[in-house]
Amino acid sequence: MHQEDTLFTALTQTHARIKPYIHHTPVLTSHLLNELAGATLYFKCENFQRMGAFKMRGAVNAIMQLSAEQQRQGVVTHSSGNFAQALALAAQSLGVTAYIVMPSNAPRVKKEAVLAYGGQVIECEPTLSAREQTAQQLVAERGATFIHPSNDLHVILGQGTAALELLTEQPDLTYLFTPVGGGGLVAGTILAAQACGRNCRIVAGEPATMDDAYRSLQAGRIESNAGGDTIADGLKTQLGDINFPLIQRGIDAIILVSEDEIIAAMRLIWERLKIVVEASSAVALAALLKNKASYAGQPVGVILSGGNVDLGKLPF
Amino acid sequence: MHQEDTLFTALTQTHARIKPYIHHTPVLTSHLLNELAGATLYFKCENFQRMGAFKMRGAVNAIMQLSAEQQRQGVVTHSSGNFAQALALAAQSLGVTAYIVMPSNAPRVKKEAVLAYGGQVIECEPTLSAREQTAQQLVAERGATFIHPSNDLHVILGQGTAALELLTEQPDLTYLFTPVGGGGLVAGTILAAQACGRNCRIVAGEPATMDDAYRSLQAGRIESNAGGDTIADGLKTQLGDINFPLIQRGIDAIILVSEDEIIAAMRLIWERLKIVVEASSAVALAALLKNKASYAGQPVGVILSGGNVDLGKLPF
Repeated sequence: MHQEDTLFTALTQTHARIKPYIHHTPVLTSHLLNELAGATLYFKCENFQRMGAFKMRGAVNAIMQLSAEQQRQGVVTHSSGNFAQALALAAQSLGVTAYIVMPSNAPRVKKEAVLAYGGQVIECEPTLSAREQTAQQLVAERGATFIHPSNDLHVILGQGTAALELLTEQPDLTYLFTPVGGGGLVAGTILAAQACGRNCRIVAGEPATMDDAYRSLQAGRIESNAGGDTIADGLKTQLGDINFPLIQRGIDAIILVSEDEIIAAMRLIWERLKIVVEASSAVALAALLKNKASYAGQPVGVILSGGNVDLGKLPF
Repeated sequence: MHQEDTLFTALTQTHARIKPYIHHTPVLTSHLLNELAGATLYFKCENFQRMGAFKMRGAVNAIMQLSAEQQRQGVVTHSSGNFAQALALAAQSLGVTAYIVMPSNAPRVKKEAVLAYGGQVIECEPTLSAREQTAQQLVAERGATFIHPSNDLHVILGQGTAALELLTEQPDLTYLFTPVGGGGLVAGTILAAQACGRNCRIVAGEPATMDDAYRSLQAGRIESNAGGDTIADGLKTQLGDINFPLIQRGIDAIILVSEDEIIAAMRLIWERLKIVVEASSAVALAALLKNKASYAGQPVGVILSGGNVDLGKLPF
């Protein structure tokens, strides 16, 4: 069996498995954005996914791959972002307990969202070591299984189903853009493109102030962020040892974009597609526009990763 | 032939006529909004309509009902809102010249939008009499046909096709909500409900500060606005002698909502449906939520009228 066949089987099985628990999200187009980009764009709207982001796909898949016994003892992660909500809602949908470790200074609205999805919030000191220690404690004491937000093959395969759906509807895409943060979405998207075997190239956008993936690719090893900041707050994470090799082997390019370029792309999406996406989503379109001469006249996909925005803190 | 049959024929013919020039807009749902309302809601997303609002439907229909000779001489309207853009884009799509009379103090972005759709902007003094006089001059001098944004039966029938699409997909709706401003959308929606003949009742939301329709209904004659203001700027217009009798005969209720209620409903739509709608659209949901006990447990439609928002002036 060829590698693509194995991959294709793994992804289609993943998709069939998680399908009852996720939305098949729509693909939107815009004449005006096509004109602006000089290409034919297909926007995969994961902002319409359950809990508002693609993370739901990976969370459902990871929980479903556990044994009944493991599921009975619950799952645990540490996150204050979309994966916290995703794991909570996925667990609730599957009748599993989810322990979400969150720093004590996380915004109240983030904690409430996890609680609303039935998750158990476990507070800890706002340091990485406290988060990891608290999570390990839950693993040791309650037998819960730790699920990483991005550096987990089942999570990666789940995230890849967004591209699988898009490439099934639009098999002729020559390029497909995603943002890159922890690397789960872009790694899954690479696997989906390889599985579909049509030579669609994957490009990731990354905030210039949070360029660990770009530097990791250049250095040939995982680099850390120096401590900058970005409006694309979903991307303040870093690659792991499971997704990095997949990205290294399969990515066409990582394009760095400025904060102004992210905000301008976000505004275009809101104004032209009339949809609410978070800044992290706009990073993919910003990267495409920055380098648009390379994609002129071609059919290009863009994964809009999520739509969980604090309307009280918009950059417009 | 019964009246409903005639109406149904008129509406389905209108729909068939304008179909190549409009989008069949999607219907969205949300578990969370259903829970909040205590009803099953179906949102007809005219914010995804061409040029961003339902007004495109009526504009296309009105132009298509003109003779070839009339079309050759162009169309004229006075508007600085969505109908200006709708008539410009409809005319461009049909190869007709559109003269759009706009007050000299209209926002630059509104003029540019009309120009981008190929309309000819004719500026005038910022008074109602100057607008009407300038429009009449274009009628007299160039033989252009004046098309009213809402008080025109062809426009009304065009606007009714949004409800026709929704009622075709969801024939069991017991209530259908729209905002009311000039009255074209609500009058068309009333005709669509009558044509479909399933006893779906029509309710309109109106800003309490711009309550001319509410008072007109009580008085039994067209009343004017006293000069207040509202964030729902698409609704600062008043009923006409063609749509008012239709509304009088066919409406179930007009519900007044406060500015705070409009903003809260707008926020709910943005946060929960992840779509961009203008404040005028939110008036319909605000009215439903205000009176939600009356619709408990029922399937209820809401027409989201448009999505043309100035992102630099959001109320959040």
